[in-house]
Amino acid sequence: MLGAGLVAHLGVIVDGHPMVVPTVYGFDDERIFLHGSVASRSLTGTGEVCVTVTVLDGLILARSVFEHGINYRSAMIYGVPARIHDPDDLLYGLRLLTEHVAPGQWDYTRRPSPKELAATTLLAVPLTEASVKISDGPPDDGAGPDAALGRWAGRLPVVATWGTPEADPLLPPGIEAPPHIAGRTGHPITG
Amino acid sequence: MLGAGLVAHLGVIVDGHPMVVPTVYGFDDERIFLHGSVASRSLTGTGEVCVTVTVLDGLILARSVFEHGINYRSAMIYGVPARIHDPDDLLYGLRLLTEHVAPGQWDYTRRPSPKELAATTLLAVPLTEASVKISDGPPDDGAGPDAALGRWAGRLPVVATWGTPEADPLLPPGIEAPPHIAGRTGHPITG
Repeated sequence: MLGAGLVAHLGVIVDGHPMVVPTVYGFDDERIFLHGSVASRSLTGTGEVCVTVTVLDGLILARSVFEHGINYRSAMIYGVPARIHDPDDLLYGLRLLTEHVAPGQWDYTRRPSPKELAATTLLAVPLTEASVKISDGPPDDGAGPDAALGRWAGRLPVVATWGTPEADPLLPPGIEAPPHIAGRTGHPITG
Repeated sequence: MLGAGLVAHLGVIVDGHPMVVPTVYGFDDERIFLHGSVASRSLTGTGEVCVTVTVLDGLILARSVFEHGINYRSAMIYGVPARIHDPDDLLYGLRLLTEHVAPGQWDYTRRPSPKELAATTLLAVPLTEASVKISDGPPDDGAGPDAALGRWAGRLPVVATWGTPEADPLLPPGIEAPPHIAGRTGHPITG
């Protein structure tokens, strides 16, 4: 499920108030890694967090308003985050995060310098306490009394794909997007 | 910004722990309405909540790993939710929610019965304390020393559209998807 999403919503308690911030992530079998470009106060000195990744697959359009819903896949991870300081582990987590979002970029672009690493806040949350919820069925009222209404019912899928790369306006002419970027066009953003 | 999203992430504190649940929503100028199909314990007796709506517009692909990022629009709403009990207000909020996700369905399908209304948990959070964050620029390193690396850099957009309606397997033959559903195919899911 985590392979299908790109943005996680990180829930933390800050001064007694809940706060939910979007952030990119990467993962391996044991941990999910979250980037620290979000407000740093939401990433330091916190206790338990909840990380939720949701992929919207479509709408469930039923015969009654009450039975409407969405097709989705969602993962919720609870845990106490650890900020990664060890340079090797920091590079490991950043590589997973980069390659999850943009496969091929770790080898194509300049890797973080020691100074950049020191300025990077990367959190790891163990995947030990995680649950996945999937809603993928059709509407529930096809065999009930509302079927007699004669209304259309079914699913309206979401189709999310990568578009055409748009070059940085400052890019000199003659540099084409490499295959690991240009080749994504038209492919699903979820994997 | 709220018009561009479909799923909100609701952050609440449950027994001292943060919890983030995805949910559909609707809104008017004053309130955001959240559906109660999520775990009811996250919707009752809570204090302040944080509702975050995020739309991913694309990836920022830079010359260095450090400058990578995402193009996105995000709204964060803080407030104390009120559960709506008044039947007129409940219908009002449900209509906004339904029409935001699936325009035209409120008039096409059967509206909630009093029994269904009583079984519906709808929360309203005032929009008085809301902030919007937008990241829509190209990479930041086009004028820096990394430009000399000669790597491609730019944006890879996300294209999210509605697919082709899929009829409920229980739907009798001869009932076609109405224009307010079938007409969405190929159009952006964000508005």
